Amino acid sequence: MVPETQFVLNSFAFLIWGALVMWMAAGFTMLESGSVRTKNASVICLKNIGLYSIAGLAYYVIGYNLMYTDVSGFIGSFTLFFNASPEEVALVGGDTGVTQSVLDTGFSQMSGWFFQMVFVATAASIVSGALAERIRLWAFFTFVLALTAFVYPIVGAWTWGEGWLFELGFSDFAGSTIVHGTGGWAALAGAIILGPRLGKFKKDGTVKNTPPSSVPITTLGVFILWLGWFGFNGGSQLALGGAVDAISVAGILVNTNLAGAAGALAAITVSRMILGRFDLFAVLNGALAGLVAVTAAPTMNHHGIAILIGFVGGVVCVLAIKLLDVLKIDDVVGAVPVHLFAGIWGTIAVAFTVDGTSFGVQLLGVLAIGAFVFGISLGLWKLIDILIGTRVSESVERLGQDVAELGVEAYPEFVLMPEDYDDED
Amino acid sequence: MVPETQFVLNSFAFLIWGALVMWMAAGFTMLESGSVRTKNASVICLKNIGLYSIAGLAYYVIGYNLMYTDVSGFIGSFTLFFNASPEEVALVGGDTGVTQSVLDTGFSQMSGWFFQMVFVATAASIVSGALAERIRLWAFFTFVLALTAFVYPIVGAWTWGEGWLFELGFSDFAGSTIVHGTGGWAALAGAIILGPRLGKFKKDGTVKNTPPSSVPITTLGVFILWLGWFGFNGGSQLALGGAVDAISVAGILVNTNLAGAAGALAAITVSRMILGRFDLFAVLNGALAGLVAVTAAPTMNHHGIAILIGFVGGVVCVLAIKLLDVLKIDDVVGAVPVHLFAGIWGTIAVAFTVDGTSFGVQLLGVLAIGAFVFGISLGLWKLIDILIGTRVSESVERLGQDVAELGVEAYPEFVLMPEDYDDED
Amino acid sequence: MVPETQFVLNSFAFLIWGALVMWMAAGFTMLESGSVRTKNASVICLKNIGLYSIAGLAYYVIGYNLMYTDVSGFIGSFTLFFNASPEEVALVGGDTGVTQSVLDTGFSQMSGWFFQMVFVATAASIVSGALAERIRLWAFFTFVLALTAFVYPIVGAWTWGEGWLFELGFSDFAGSTIVHGTGGWAALAGAIILGPRLGKFKKDGTVKNTPPSSVPITTLGVFILWLGWFGFNGGSQLALGGAVDAISVAGILVNTNLAGAAGALAAITVSRMILGRFDLFAVLNGALAGLVAVTAAPTMNHHGIAILIGFVGGVVCVLAIKLLDVLKIDDVVGAVPVHLFAGIWGTIAVAFTVDGTSFGVQLLGVLAIGAFVFGISLGLWKLIDILIGTRVSESVERLGQDVAELGVEAYPEFVLMPEDYDDED
Repeated sequence: MVPETQFVLNSFAFLIWGALVMWMAAGFTMLESGSVRTKNASVICLKNIGLYSIAGLAYYVIGYNLMYTDVSGFIGSFTLFFNASPEEVALVGGDTGVTQSVLDTGFSQMSGWFFQMVFVATAASIVSGALAERIRLWAFFTFVLALTAFVYPIVGAWTWGEGWLFELGFSDFAGSTIVHGTGGWAALAGAIILGPRLGKFKKDGTVKNTPPSSVPITTLGVFILWLGWFGFNGGSQLALGGAVDAISVAGILVNTNLAGAAGALAAITVSRMILGRFDLFAVLNGALAGLVAVTAAPTMNHHGIAILIGFVGGVVCVLAIKLLDVLKIDDVVGAVPVHLFAGIWGTIAVAFTVDGTSFGVQLLGVLAIGAFVFGISLGLWKLIDILIGTRVSESVERLGQDVAELGVEAYPEFVLMPEDYDDED
Repeated sequence: MVPETQFVLNSFAFLIWGALVMWMAAGFTMLESGSVRTKNASVICLKNIGLYSIAGLAYYVIGYNLMYTDVSGFIGSFTLFFNASPEEVALVGGDTGVTQSVLDTGFSQMSGWFFQMVFVATAASIVSGALAERIRLWAFFTFVLALTAFVYPIVGAWTWGEGWLFELGFSDFAGSTIVHGTGGWAALAGAIILGPRLGKFKKDGTVKNTPPSSVPITTLGVFILWLGWFGFNGGSQLALGGAVDAISVAGILVNTNLAGAAGALAAITVSRMILGRFDLFAVLNGALAGLVAVTAAPTMNHHGIAILIGFVGGVVCVLAIKLLDVLKIDDVVGAVPVHLFAGIWGTIAVAFTVDGTSFGVQLLGVLAIGAFVFGISLGLWKLIDILIGTRVSESVERLGQDVAELGVEAYPEFVLMPEDYDDED
Repeated sequence: MVPETQFVLNSFAFLIWGALVMWMAAGFTMLESGSVRTKNASVICLKNIGLYSIAGLAYYVIGYNLMYTDVSGFIGSFTLFFNASPEEVALVGGDTGVTQSVLDTGFSQMSGWFFQMVFVATAASIVSGALAERIRLWAFFTFVLALTAFVYPIVGAWTWGEGWLFELGFSDFAGSTIVHGTGGWAALAGAIILGPRLGKFKKDGTVKNTPPSSVPITTLGVFILWLGWFGFNGGSQLALGGAVDAISVAGILVNTNLAGAAGALAAITVSRMILGRFDLFAVLNGALAGLVAVTAAPTMNHHGIAILIGFVGGVVCVLAIKLLDVLKIDDVVGAVPVHLFAGIWGTIAVAFTVDGTSFGVQLLGVLAIGAFVFGISLGLWKLIDILIGTRVSESVERLGQDVAELGVEAYPEFVLMPEDYDDED
């Protein structure tokens, strides 16, 4: 294959797979909007369209260069903006003398940026679900700005930017820990600082399951995410310029799909045992957990192994949902069980499925990224809490953020049941 | 074009078109969830995410080899699992000595598997809609396992696996009968065994149209399916490795779109005449029927013929909706009219649009596949009925499967109208 | 890259990007269905599936040839139907003697048709939102037929068909004015002829914001449109046959995304100032306005300029929403502010971002297309009004079009609030 064909195919693949990952932003929005109570279903839509916008702008202005430009171990460059190279601009302008140097880079620079940008948005999306129904709009947007401009890019510099964890041999193909773990740790820190929603954990020790506003919309969100995951993992091959890439990407899509399927089946099987009820949300989260788990290494040649990874991911997720309930940590959509816990499992499992990796380094990567993201997120949430306040007032929480913060209900014409706050604290 | 470029383009096309077909699983879910009564809108979501998972796993473990590996007339191999060839694994591992033998296969093996896998899921999706609101969850999953591991793969072996119907010259480009007919016959058998929903057919001979839970969500489902159909039919060219393929695929997408449009217009036109009312669901189903009808041969050079095929498909669908009402067969979403009846029309019409085909062989294919799938499905449903029971109890059916089987309503916070069961039998 | 590879990549790009643009039809449907009152949420679904069908058929039968075949300044050919060239048919039939002449065309003819067809549908979709909740179904379909068979193709002939505006140097890369302006002017004319909905503008000068049926579904629509816009703008490069195209398309997707993000942020920032409330719909429309604004020239090398273009687009949109309220023009979803006003801004801004363009010619193009489309649309709406009537009766409007025209409510099982018509005129 001639270099120009490779260049075009590599670039086109980044754009198509990246568009599918962008679509995951809609998936998170639907998943979250369908899962929260009806009184908060509009504000979560605004949070998601806002976070996607902020993530893209922040990554363009600051994040990408921090993550990929001149990374020296821990961090890249503080240069502002990331644009096409002068050579690419010259080539588009008609200067064919630079053709070779452009083709040597392998793909259009902005196609690579586009693909990385949608990953940042994914990390931010994870946070919005966990903290739904009680976090103030501006506090959330402020955190998202910090996460997408600085926190995630620094984690990315350590790894995909070829910093210190990369040097040690840490392997996380499409980001079970780099993306999903980062989002999960940030969400966990926020959930701890914010505290649970009113009435979530009752005095008698029971846990109140708040009613979802729309199960079909939640399910739609999961299907969108599943579809987007083909781009997320398939695009992380970072190339489509030859038979090896084509074979690899095909295997990745197959592994991704089988792991998601196995995660769903695991949750169907174990949710009744562990949660004491047959739970549609566990199944939906189980599918996502299977997808997260395989994301760290969706490259196995025997696809039965992907089934195993995904199945265990589904089990881990259901167990973690139970664990958070015990710890009285309120994660509205199960983002931490899905993205953090299943992500840890997947990242560790790499040591057993990928040659040249080690259990120790995988664990080190999980711990280092966890310590950094969790620590800095705790600090950020605390700072935001002091400066502008993170949590809505009790009256806003009772009334719902839609009416109180936004002035528009999600379904204003529909008659709703009065909410039951009888035995809250 | 060099062989490696062909290999990459063929494989990439399978993956992209396959991802669009996977998206049809979401389309069926939305279509069905929006069409059923609100009290059953959650369980149909679970059925769909479950069937997609089961279909993928069953096809990986058993189905694909039955359909494509060493097919000797009627059936392929009972080998377990389908993975990349040793040559492909070797090439990815760096052994360039096998390059030529890999490129000779034309595309990455797992990209082909991926594309075929999403077709299995489509066949299973067709069943869930017809049997909604009364079939037990586990009975449904059990049937799906049999359908996707054995029934569909055997039909596939006869045809695309180059078995006896293929040898006779039976032609069904993207599966009007192989996929949609198989799903439709399986659904019809199930609908007969299950019987109609309580109160569907009244003593006075009238038919009760049950209220859909959400018309916009149903409509979304149809748009998703329409989009996915570009992958379904376009990908069935099975190649993108040259100008002939590119021209063919473009024509296929154009024909697909025009047939869907014509089916919608046919239903707009005739639904008022035949059904006695202007019917949005008839229009939505008409579009789908047009898409099904053209699926058997979306390859005509004069695209006006696709309009004709789609238009007749829309008319056939509306007539078949009426017919099922007369026969007192309860198909909740019109899956049998859309997929089976319009599929038969499309498969027969091949004899008039594709050179080298014959009316007799097309009819034989329709009848043979129909007899096999309908017969074996009747037996399977009967067996499942005896072993675990197919139909929920009358009290569950009245209460709704969401509360009774799942413990979660689709829209728990919304106040619903009391259901009218006045004059049911 | 060899010509055949270029041919395949160009064609494939048209099909993939075109499929994404087709998906925008679903986006408009969701946006509109979620934005209207619940009593009109079904009929808008039917209008959208109907308009997409009509647009495709009309463009195949008449529109495409009017726009692209033998254009002599103002209009193309009145030949019926557009099919693949005889050379392409011959090549697919096995006549390799025509290979060179086919490859010389650069792409499969029907792939180009497919991409242009979905643009027509977009223009028609813009109209349905503005005129929702009061226009009669058949009046709307009649106008859509005229718009997609004649009006839009004539505008297209002047510009992309290389007619008189093209000759003068008018530049509108992906159609800020050609598509979005055309749809916007047609919608504006219709809104004037139809008049505002009952009770929209009160005697005391205040404006009544009617309740949306579903905010999450509206938000889903915006995400769908955003995703589809990558195809809309990226595909308008009209090629993927070399490194220059790949670089250009990548830059286009980046600019498109950043402009949408900036439009959303602009609306978040200014909606409170200008509209006097924090407004989710303003934010959603702001994102779309940013996307519309950059559509005329998403090709800038410094992507910060796209942010500027999109930000101003968002501001223009919010101001225009206010302006329409002052003028008592009732545009249900803000289609005119988003598509017409932001489109004008984007088209004029081309003079400052694209070499070789002039402010005068850009302005001339905006005015000429505006005068033509607005004038002919006024005449068409008036004619339709006389012949079959454009507006539903007052009783239908109060009852809702779903029940009155269609006989099916969007959410028939849900209990709705009684509507408040107290102080309408």
